[in-house]
Amino acid sequence: MIELARSTWTEVAAHMKSGQTESGRTTAFLPFGALEQHGPHLPLSTDTLQCGEIARRLAERTDGILLPPVHYGETWGNSGHPGTISLAPSTVTAIAVDIARAAAGFGVDAFVIVNGDYGNMNPLVLASRLLQMEHGIPALVIDYPGLVAAGDAVKESPWAAPGLCHADEMETSMILAIDPDLVHPDRYAPSYPEMPADFGHRPIRLGDLAESGVFGDPRPATAAKGESIIEAVVANALELVTAFQSAVRG
Amino acid sequence: MIELARSTWTEVAAHMKSGQTESGRTTAFLPFGALEQHGPHLPLSTDTLQCGEIARRLAERTDGILLPPVHYGETWGNSGHPGTISLAPSTVTAIAVDIARAAAGFGVDAFVIVNGDYGNMNPLVLASRLLQMEHGIPALVIDYPGLVAAGDAVKESPWAAPGLCHADEMETSMILAIDPDLVHPDRYAPSYPEMPADFGHRPIRLGDLAESGVFGDPRPATAAKGESIIEAVVANALELVTAFQSAVRG
Amino acid sequence: MIELARSTWTEVAAHMKSGQTESGRTTAFLPFGALEQHGPHLPLSTDTLQCGEIARRLAERTDGILLPPVHYGETWGNSGHPGTISLAPSTVTAIAVDIARAAAGFGVDAFVIVNGDYGNMNPLVLASRLLQMEHGIPALVIDYPGLVAAGDAVKESPWAAPGLCHADEMETSMILAIDPDLVHPDRYAPSYPEMPADFGHRPIRLGDLAESGVFGDPRPATAAKGESIIEAVVANALELVTAFQSAVRG
Amino acid sequence: MIELARSTWTEVAAHMKSGQTESGRTTAFLPFGALEQHGPHLPLSTDTLQCGEIARRLAERTDGILLPPVHYGETWGNSGHPGTISLAPSTVTAIAVDIARAAAGFGVDAFVIVNGDYGNMNPLVLASRLLQMEHGIPALVIDYPGLVAAGDAVKESPWAAPGLCHADEMETSMILAIDPDLVHPDRYAPSYPEMPADFGHRPIRLGDLAESGVFGDPRPATAAKGESIIEAVVANALELVTAFQSAVRG
Amino acid sequence: MIELARSTWTEVAAHMKSGQTESGRTTAFLPFGALEQHGPHLPLSTDTLQCGEIARRLAERTDGILLPPVHYGETWGNSGHPGTISLAPSTVTAIAVDIARAAAGFGVDAFVIVNGDYGNMNPLVLASRLLQMEHGIPALVIDYPGLVAAGDAVKESPWAAPGLCHADEMETSMILAIDPDLVHPDRYAPSYPEMPADFGHRPIRLGDLAESGVFGDPRPATAAKGESIIEAVVANALELVTAFQSAVRG
Amino acid sequence: MIELARSTWTEVAAHMKSGQTESGRTTAFLPFGALEQHGPHLPLSTDTLQCGEIARRLAERTDGILLPPVHYGETWGNSGHPGTISLAPSTVTAIAVDIARAAAGFGVDAFVIVNGDYGNMNPLVLASRLLQMEHGIPALVIDYPGLVAAGDAVKESPWAAPGLCHADEMETSMILAIDPDLVHPDRYAPSYPEMPADFGHRPIRLGDLAESGVFGDPRPATAAKGESIIEAVVANALELVTAFQSAVRG
Repeated sequence: MIELARSTWTEVAAHMKSGQTESGRTTAFLPFGALEQHGPHLPLSTDTLQCGEIARRLAERTDGILLPPVHYGETWGNSGHPGTISLAPSTVTAIAVDIARAAAGFGVDAFVIVNGDYGNMNPLVLASRLLQMEHGIPALVIDYPGLVAAGDAVKESPWAAPGLCHADEMETSMILAIDPDLVHPDRYAPSYPEMPADFGHRPIRLGDLAESGVFGDPRPATAAKGESIIEAVVANALELVTAFQSAVRG
Repeated sequence: MIELARSTWTEVAAHMKSGQTESGRTTAFLPFGALEQHGPHLPLSTDTLQCGEIARRLAERTDGILLPPVHYGETWGNSGHPGTISLAPSTVTAIAVDIARAAAGFGVDAFVIVNGDYGNMNPLVLASRLLQMEHGIPALVIDYPGLVAAGDAVKESPWAAPGLCHADEMETSMILAIDPDLVHPDRYAPSYPEMPADFGHRPIRLGDLAESGVFGDPRPATAAKGESIIEAVVANALELVTAFQSAVRG
Repeated sequence: MIELARSTWTEVAAHMKSGQTESGRTTAFLPFGALEQHGPHLPLSTDTLQCGEIARRLAERTDGILLPPVHYGETWGNSGHPGTISLAPSTVTAIAVDIARAAAGFGVDAFVIVNGDYGNMNPLVLASRLLQMEHGIPALVIDYPGLVAAGDAVKESPWAAPGLCHADEMETSMILAIDPDLVHPDRYAPSYPEMPADFGHRPIRLGDLAESGVFGDPRPATAAKGESIIEAVVANALELVTAFQSAVRG
Repeated sequence: MIELARSTWTEVAAHMKSGQTESGRTTAFLPFGALEQHGPHLPLSTDTLQCGEIARRLAERTDGILLPPVHYGETWGNSGHPGTISLAPSTVTAIAVDIARAAAGFGVDAFVIVNGDYGNMNPLVLASRLLQMEHGIPALVIDYPGLVAAGDAVKESPWAAPGLCHADEMETSMILAIDPDLVHPDRYAPSYPEMPADFGHRPIRLGDLAESGVFGDPRPATAAKGESIIEAVVANALELVTAFQSAVRG
Repeated sequence: MIELARSTWTEVAAHMKSGQTESGRTTAFLPFGALEQHGPHLPLSTDTLQCGEIARRLAERTDGILLPPVHYGETWGNSGHPGTISLAPSTVTAIAVDIARAAAGFGVDAFVIVNGDYGNMNPLVLASRLLQMEHGIPALVIDYPGLVAAGDAVKESPWAAPGLCHADEMETSMILAIDPDLVHPDRYAPSYPEMPADFGHRPIRLGDLAESGVFGDPRPATAAKGESIIEAVVANALELVTAFQSAVRG
Repeated sequence: MIELARSTWTEVAAHMKSGQTESGRTTAFLPFGALEQHGPHLPLSTDTLQCGEIARRLAERTDGILLPPVHYGETWGNSGHPGTISLAPSTVTAIAVDIARAAAGFGVDAFVIVNGDYGNMNPLVLASRLLQMEHGIPALVIDYPGLVAAGDAVKESPWAAPGLCHADEMETSMILAIDPDLVHPDRYAPSYPEMPADFGHRPIRLGDLAESGVFGDPRPATAAKGESIIEAVVANALELVTAFQSAVRG
């Protein structure tokens, strides 16, 4: 594995050159996060920390290339709370397209985006389509495969909505596993807002539903649960990455 | 000072609320870096590390808001070396505009971009113009004020070109001051390419001028020199920030 | 219910005026289809026919406004077969945004897009986000809710992939229910292509997987099955529409 | 003639394959309509019906390909009446460019747009220019050639303005010829608004000139007149199509 | 009349201030030309000279504001000959929109574009539509009203095609009237290329039809004819301008 | 030297053909000006006159191609005074890109933009980057090289700000040298506004600083000073042009 932010261009050149014979070394992983409110007990960078950790483990296990994270994403749904910074969807798309094109330009043949934010999904899928349609560059978008099953396996608190993870037991557990110093257990407060029946079918601002920004109950969170969730997602993601590598390398 | 990536939204709200009476607390600093080749001895993230450090010190001294860095910039001039990732100029502009607008949306009244990369300058100035013209949001772009004088005060090696800092004694010194583990002194090799007479007046790819990517002599670099350069830039930048704060707060 | 294509402006005015007191009359339904290959036995307009029928039933049951269908969508995944016409994602987004803005301009307060094509989903969700973020216009995107369960209830043939409906028993049944003259039973031929493990996570062209364009087995298709599938989707969609109407009308 | 909406991809393939030896089979006709007010007696889809009919006859007589109509166009000039839906000019251009490019992609070599709406003309001509300049795709835009002469030959009522046809004797006659069920003779009411002297030289909203949306006198309309007008336009258009086919096929 | 290029801002302010009581002083005229081949005997700036002269006379007779000309236009149809410079249609539109918006910003209430180039017409009409639709700014586009009749009154040579003026007796006469030093009578050579039957209905490059770039016969040209053509166009244009001023000033 | 506006296409063809053996004849110069306030004593076209004169001299001395000037630029900083017309930055970029592409299309191999306006600099540098990155067309942007030194050599009045020339002794001298009829000495009035400390680091409107629009003292201006300034700039620019020609012709 090579981490671009900490490496020189000569090290990248050497790593990739060997990748022509060894599998994985020309696969790049881009963690695409967000800066958005996660309740009073989790940092604004929660999404970036999570996708950054998953991307790192994927790069490690495939001897791939780890790109530095994008700290900002499309998070209109969390605007309204101080500290949330939302990019336009078109900006998210442009960032992903530009980075993938540049990576393809120096030899990356399997480009993997690890998405950490709900609002990014749409513009990142659009990016992968544009990359394929307009530039012939294949790009895999990974969005925490198997997360719900992994949550069901460890969660003690109910979901605020089916599949919705936001400042709840799951996200709190993951940050406890990644960087516990950034978690404030003294501020844990469960919150189960009433969800509109058409939630997920039109744009809804989370802050209009829950003033605190919490959707669930962080109290049962533990680092061990977080670790098991992360590992489950990584395992599922690895299968996608392997299939993707096979496809692009024929 | 508050660092957004490590803070919760409630902490941001409290910090800014007090900013209504105390100066500085509604000034935000965005480090805009790049991922680009810096010779065999410096990391690809050199520009991000430098502007991130300067932005941090500015936020500390003004009790301001530190935004997470943008790790990618417009660096076409360094394309051609593996590991360099260049965004389109329009993407750089869009990122800066979106972040500034979102920050203004939750109360930031003085938005400061600390630029770490030559290629970003043009699209960031464009962003500041668009922010003012189209959105009425003032934005200050800081590009290492006083860097040349600071270099002249400590440099032992000659400049590769007037004002050009790239993988030379100055940049190496700054990274030695910021994160010495990322510097490889065993690979120091001076390089003084012949510079075209119209350098700086049209787009020229650095890699076409110097295969190693070095423009100068990293050998006399020391952390102490780097610290003095950084502090000189910070001092000059603080004057601009203070003037800017006065202007926007009438 | 009023069908715009067959009505005069004075009839629309009268219908909507009464809508100020009667529920539903200011809800508009836009069927967004596609012109894409559906094997040798189904017409290129299959998706438009299906979403048009569902939109019509929704308009009838809510006494709403039926807009004429968009016959073209983003269907890059089916390009390669003669007759498939794919719009750029940005064009799909622009069409939906323009129509919704114009409808809002004459009094429509609940705008519902009934999507008939996989490739449209991404650009239509983007449209609904832009409508909300930039214009304050709420828009619901309906994408055959409950389709898989409805299929499981009647299907005799296996799925080609989980949730994938393309020229199979389900789609053939629905067209038999809507316009049987357009179905060619003499050309029914099952096709179960090998699906890549990362299907759905990156752009893949269906034509590269199945030369005939069929994914499943059309042979057990019947109009009765089609009717039951359509009705199940309509019932689920009505719940979303009702919730949406409540939300936008406070 | 092959009508894409009702055909399978295999039928299209067969039709076009034979077109390599027989003239016409690779010429496609796109009716580009609008949804706009046409007074109290004609449907909102009047323009789409008219251009759809003309496109159909052209396809029939050249054994060409009939594309499904675009039901929406740029009709800002008719905004202000409920039911009018106007696309942005750029959206009209994008739709035409995308469809023509996709058609060229599967072998159409002569692409003909049959325009049914005044406001579309500008963006469609722009589309044909962009198709030629940027993609090398020739496209003919047909805008009812010889309409005025055909009208002069049968009209009993005066023109509201030179060449202006809107909900008048001519348009009413054409819809009587195409689909008489959609015409409401009981609501016929002539209207001759005062026209500004600079009409046609700057954007003017028709609704500001005539509250009813009628420009002329529908009372003398007959299906026979409509048929003669349509046939005259088709005859003139056929000459343009023949010349166009000769030009693109050398 | 005030000519902006030769005036100071204080003179403009004074001129316009008086315009609040005297008619015309807040009407601005923008000549929009082109740099394109006009045969071996006329300068590349022919179109700019012609529309500049007409705009000047209109400004003089209405005591209006004369803007400096735009020397470049959309002239793809004349590309292929050295010296022709064609802007993209979108650039022409943007220039006109920006100038009109800026003029409206300092008090111009009637903005008139005098077009001198066939290819500009489409993008300028689009500009006038966007100005009205998006900015509420009325703009009149003048394209040599009555030119054909004026030509028929004086022309001795036949038209190369109905209404087509390019390096022929008419254009040569007008330049003889405006700036005879730029005309080369020794190079006059008639040219009547065969015109395709669909000329004017799709983009056709003039240079593919006539190698010399001439469409007609310059030999009978005289300055007196040019003067009479210009005056006829100016008279017709004045009627449009007067109607436009009445409309915008209520 | 050939001046395109006054030449025929056949003359351009002949000039450039000889340029294949003689240096310079395929170098084109584009003066990019602005229409903006320059105090009560200088015309709105001051910037265009200056860059037009410098471009003319450069074309003369290199036997190059002189393009007609662009009379409009990005001059938001001077908006607020009647007569100032500012283009959007993107429009300035588009104009320069289009013209350079068209010129490259007929054989120009060294494209030089002579900029006359502060606000244009950013969008023109962006244009040169896009021309290089996206089209492989090299473009040199000249922005009065050596102007400050030339001013220091002749100026009698102090600078309003370091390097700032606006309606001062320098600009007045240059217009006295170029077209003295456009200068109004009877209105000379010095003005030394207080400049913000962050001037040049964020967008600031000049009109907010000086009501008259003057920054300095025009009184000591003379045509001789203007001539010496122009000649100094031309000499410096010629060095850049020569280096540029060598680079592109390798």
